[in-house]
Amino acid sequence: MLGSTHGTLTTDFRARVEACGESPRTAVHSSAPPSPEDTAALDVSGRPLHADVPDLDRFFRPESVAVIGASDTEGRPNTGITRQLITWAQRVGARIHPVHPARESVFGLPCVPSVADLPEQVDLAVLLVADPLPVIEELAETKVRFAVAFASGFAETGDAGAAAQARLAAAVGRSNLRLLGPNTNLNAFEEFREDLTGPAIALITQSGHQGRPVYTLQELGIRLSHWAPTGNEADLETSDFISYFAERPEVGAIACYVEGLKDGRSFLLAADRAARNGVPVVAVKVGRTETGARMAASHTGKMTGADTVVDAAMRQFGVIRVDGLDELQDTAALLARARRPKAEGVVVYSISGGTGAHFSDLATEAGLSLPTLSRAKQDELHQWIPEYLNVANPVDNGGHPVGDWRGRKIIDAILADPSVGVLICPITGPFPPMSDKLAQDLVDAAEQSDKLICVIWGSPVGTEDAYREVLLGSSRVATFRTFGNCITAVRAYLGHHRFTTGYRSPFDEAPRTPSPSYRKAQALMRPGQQLSEHAAKQLLRAYGIRVPREQLVTSAAAAVRAAGLVGYPVVMKASGPQLGHKTELGLVKIGLTSASQIRDAYRELTDIARYENVPLDGILVCQMVERGVEMVVGVTQDDLFGPTVTVGLGGVLVEVLDDAAVRVPPFGENQARAMLTELRGHALLEGVRGAPPADVDALVEVILRIQRMALELGDELSELDINPLMVLPRGQGAVALDALAICR
Amino acid sequence: MLGSTHGTLTTDFRARVEACGESPRTAVHSSAPPSPEDTAALDVSGRPLHADVPDLDRFFRPESVAVIGASDTEGRPNTGITRQLITWAQRVGARIHPVHPARESVFGLPCVPSVADLPEQVDLAVLLVADPLPVIEELAETKVRFAVAFASGFAETGDAGAAAQARLAAAVGRSNLRLLGPNTNLNAFEEFREDLTGPAIALITQSGHQGRPVYTLQELGIRLSHWAPTGNEADLETSDFISYFAERPEVGAIACYVEGLKDGRSFLLAADRAARNGVPVVAVKVGRTETGARMAASHTGKMTGADTVVDAAMRQFGVIRVDGLDELQDTAALLARARRPKAEGVVVYSISGGTGAHFSDLATEAGLSLPTLSRAKQDELHQWIPEYLNVANPVDNGGHPVGDWRGRKIIDAILADPSVGVLICPITGPFPPMSDKLAQDLVDAAEQSDKLICVIWGSPVGTEDAYREVLLGSSRVATFRTFGNCITAVRAYLGHHRFTTGYRSPFDEAPRTPSPSYRKAQALMRPGQQLSEHAAKQLLRAYGIRVPREQLVTSAAAAVRAAGLVGYPVVMKASGPQLGHKTELGLVKIGLTSASQIRDAYRELTDIARYENVPLDGILVCQMVERGVEMVVGVTQDDLFGPTVTVGLGGVLVEVLDDAAVRVPPFGENQARAMLTELRGHALLEGVRGAPPADVDALVEVILRIQRMALELGDELSELDINPLMVLPRGQGAVALDALAICR
Repeated sequence: MLGSTHGTLTTDFRARVEACGESPRTAVHSSAPPSPEDTAALDVSGRPLHADVPDLDRFFRPESVAVIGASDTEGRPNTGITRQLITWAQRVGARIHPVHPARESVFGLPCVPSVADLPEQVDLAVLLVADPLPVIEELAETKVRFAVAFASGFAETGDAGAAAQARLAAAVGRSNLRLLGPNTNLNAFEEFREDLTGPAIALITQSGHQGRPVYTLQELGIRLSHWAPTGNEADLETSDFISYFAERPEVGAIACYVEGLKDGRSFLLAADRAARNGVPVVAVKVGRTETGARMAASHTGKMTGADTVVDAAMRQFGVIRVDGLDELQDTAALLARARRPKAEGVVVYSISGGTGAHFSDLATEAGLSLPTLSRAKQDELHQWIPEYLNVANPVDNGGHPVGDWRGRKIIDAILADPSVGVLICPITGPFPPMSDKLAQDLVDAAEQSDKLICVIWGSPVGTEDAYREVLLGSSRVATFRTFGNCITAVRAYLGHHRFTTGYRSPFDEAPRTPSPSYRKAQALMRPGQQLSEHAAKQLLRAYGIRVPREQLVTSAAAAVRAAGLVGYPVVMKASGPQLGHKTELGLVKIGLTSASQIRDAYRELTDIARYENVPLDGILVCQMVERGVEMVVGVTQDDLFGPTVTVGLGGVLVEVLDDAAVRVPPFGENQARAMLTELRGHALLEGVRGAPPADVDALVEVILRIQRMALELGDELSELDINPLMVLPRGQGAVALDALAICR
Repeated sequence: MLGSTHGTLTTDFRARVEACGESPRTAVHSSAPPSPEDTAALDVSGRPLHADVPDLDRFFRPESVAVIGASDTEGRPNTGITRQLITWAQRVGARIHPVHPARESVFGLPCVPSVADLPEQVDLAVLLVADPLPVIEELAETKVRFAVAFASGFAETGDAGAAAQARLAAAVGRSNLRLLGPNTNLNAFEEFREDLTGPAIALITQSGHQGRPVYTLQELGIRLSHWAPTGNEADLETSDFISYFAERPEVGAIACYVEGLKDGRSFLLAADRAARNGVPVVAVKVGRTETGARMAASHTGKMTGADTVVDAAMRQFGVIRVDGLDELQDTAALLARARRPKAEGVVVYSISGGTGAHFSDLATEAGLSLPTLSRAKQDELHQWIPEYLNVANPVDNGGHPVGDWRGRKIIDAILADPSVGVLICPITGPFPPMSDKLAQDLVDAAEQSDKLICVIWGSPVGTEDAYREVLLGSSRVATFRTFGNCITAVRAYLGHHRFTTGYRSPFDEAPRTPSPSYRKAQALMRPGQQLSEHAAKQLLRAYGIRVPREQLVTSAAAAVRAAGLVGYPVVMKASGPQLGHKTELGLVKIGLTSASQIRDAYRELTDIARYENVPLDGILVCQMVERGVEMVVGVTQDDLFGPTVTVGLGGVLVEVLDDAAVRVPPFGENQARAMLTELRGHALLEGVRGAPPADVDALVEVILRIQRMALELGDELSELDINPLMVLPRGQGAVALDALAICR
């Protein structure tokens, strides 16, 4: 019964096994135009600072399509797809050319035996063959612009499949065509409602099935302009579609379902383009847990990256991450259609004080700002609302005024308040004489206002006219079914506009050439080794990061002399490559105040090192640094994004609570500061228990210098950890008391 | 137009202004039966250990009802209510007696001028009068069992209203009747679908409007047995209805919307009854934020309590707190109908690997357990599912098998696995040939299985037959609309059964008489004062909590002698009433190792105290306690619940991150242990950075002793803080190094 009669909704259920049908021979007969990509500028780490936008117009609106492996034999998987393509072509006026080595015609259309025999240059080749590689090779020298490969069995199946996918990608790379897939389907050529107007959602899904709820939103009046089911992304990837959609005038928001990213940098560049253009990107990204990451990887064979890093990267570039498909729908729909907010204030308007209190409680907890309306505004509202009801915000009308002429006046008066950017009206229970009138008033008011009106239709039934006809019939009112999704979407809406207002791309300011520090740093690197503490600190000094006055000595007498130069009291530590856990091993002595203590400490440290069999390059005699706030700052290599910079609160907070923030370079000072406010224990930097505020400016400077180092050393530096960085009181700087560096 | 023609759905919109109508005279003509309440046992703090269950059978099913203030004049608010009551009475076969001083008949029913003239003893009096107090006083000596007062203008309006409400409550207290309201409505007498069978939801709402979505669930086939709109709770309160519903055989779950609690203890006793009976209580409780708490208080005039305390109290007694009304619906519906789980394992079954990965990711993050299916089970599933698809859990069938005979076999095979308690199937996109068959198979399998099947219908449209007819038509399959709500509900379901299995009520073990410690403690209390550190530690010692060896001295010579007895090194601290922030003031000296250091310290401490003008009762010479994990343990008085016990991690964690857990007495050892695992930094107790594990048993013992103290001293103790409690390595105990106690 499969793949036979079920029209447009079938493809995502079927993609995986659909492409196991016939394998026609194909041939090449023309050459493709040159690829539009140019050599982009690179940052100092060798990563691109620019990504071209692929021209996908003819992919989404091909005028002629070759269907390679076309079939009209009932019961064959390819038959359903062929039928769907023909139906689609009839609707949009495209020409379909079936290709099959053994058929004369397919569904009445003349069939050619191979690609070489196609009667015209086609825009798109749909590959319904089990092994797309030979076809891609045949197509490589034609002028075919795009191919879609349905076949599964590639990277999602393991190493052998990944190798096959790499061969496919290489073949595409040698050609002039762009490939969608493999392991994808025809979601891009489904029927999109043409009667809906206004800004649309453009949809990108790595698993087509997961896009179905957003697609189905069209039945509720939400316009969808495109759907890109990217599958395994051997060539075209999520980022390409984000870039393309971000340039399309009809696209109001981009909704993505992402299992893994093919390349971190291209994702950042695409998100950056969307941010520059003010186009919101809303994404579900699987991989919050190890389990999810593993399963997603096994589904499309992509890497998912460390989730905290992905999460940070998304926030850095304004991508709105949501968890459920319902949140994806509701948030994308709101962001696609709502205009720029006039103010950040949210007013809650309800016909019941309980509903208003409940909703306001949740909204406030989520960080929305509910301003108290002015006395004058409250007096105005009390013309229509009884005095004993609260109209300060939430505005409780007690029910009755919504049923008559007062209903609209109240709404208009609220919208007219300059502190109000959003009016949210939870309609908990459907009661036609009131709720229908209320819904209509809200819809009418929204038509005449430039402010956002949101309604939560609380009835679980959802077949009521006020909901189906009145509210969903309006493209100006955003209608939700739950308090939670309304709050999530409104927060994203206000956050998006806050983020994009005055957005400055970090790529514009990313360093392109090495700093003078780089030469000094390079001389210190020891490939494949962990540097000694002393060498690691030299690396920091090369980038202008303060370290304590210290000397590396190899005799007790030299230690005493060094202490004189460094200044009492001193700290003494064993120094050597491969040396971690110094404190636990007893290889640190603090607060030494006399020559005799120094001689004793020298003997003890070298004894322990001998006993523990730890090779030393000497003993460090260091300045004692006064107490400040202990932080950790580090560099880690992420599989997906390359070097990342982490900052955390030292001691218990980072070790027990993992209280750290991460950023993907390039990022500016604003992000470095945001890292600190993200820390749960950030109040420590402001001074607690009578401690003075810490030198946050100096800390930010260290973060930015470490970023520079991470970019310049790139892959050479596997890992760097300053632990602790002692951040002194404001105006006194920050000092790296210990550091660990591992070279690659 | 109001209150005229709109049937059963009108009351909650109208309650507030409805009761401003006519005020008929009423009179008394019989006496009520004695109240069923008996003298309950009290715990040592004087709080009850038992609450009677009010007999509300005749409230919900009265056989005769007096409508005081009945009206049939079109346009009057009371007319709609009268009509609704008559309609209801006709349906259930009750007798209605209109009461009005000036009418002969109302809607054709004979009307009497006052209560005294009623033709029979009535079960329920509905008071549609602006001031219910005189009517309650007239009814007080009749045998009327129940009254409902619609009037608003009581505690929700401020102090004068609160006083009026107190007078009303006092009048009820003097009578034999029980009152619902004021500020309530007729939700209890709406139409409930009689055709639905199986365990039902019983609903309690303080704002009737907020109950509408749960009520409306009946249209989706979810049975509702009762609805109690409690309003201002001058007499009958949420807790009374929880207790009553927990004893009703038809009630499968209790759903509550709570703005504030009238009394903390009665709520705990009601929740305890529900827990003993295994009846789940699911509650929205407004007041997560200050704003929400304030607004809720202004809505019904109730206290909301400190939210962290309310939250803890709910968890202690197994009340499931949710945030949105949609969560309330979905969680209550699942808990009402699902049977006890056979296992905790959740299997995710989908027709798309992407959907399975996404859902499993969210479910795992939320703490659900997704066991990997055994090799044998996977082999079994691969009979019907292609080899290349993952069936370990999530089970991805690739789409096709659901469309034929294999679909049911797969479901049955999963359900037969002993590790599986719940099967969750997200149906992301509706595609009738597959999704309808899948839905039917799931419904059929559920009928023959004692395991829980959940479906998430991902289409936002919700008018599809598979959803409306097949899934909602089953009382055995739990159907959700979002991933999030399914996860919330399943977690609550498994958590509820885990909690109630072997539940032991803490009330059964709560102390009823003072311990020998109490007499010692009492002697130390100084009403209205803060005790000195030394006295506070004596209080701890009275309850068997270890404090350092210490002596209070008033001369340097005595300090030196004390150090000899206590043992070097010692700590010296100023001790006096009203003395806080000793460390900041420099009033603590640690690590003193000689007589001369002690004499210097004595002089310095007394000098500072003089300079700071701090009265001392002496200087404490204390044993230095070795390092352990610093905790804080304290007692605070909560407005709603009385004394509460708090434990937190000392130092930065509690001060900066507020990392503390609270419990409301009485609680047992299991809850004391749970407090520790709730702490974000609880790993510190297990030993980090090479530290040994801490003596958690000793810490738990301190928590329980502090609870005992809090109960015995009750209101006498305003506040107690042990900071720090040094928890030594396992087996070595815990020592209170400093303490602060404030008497009332």
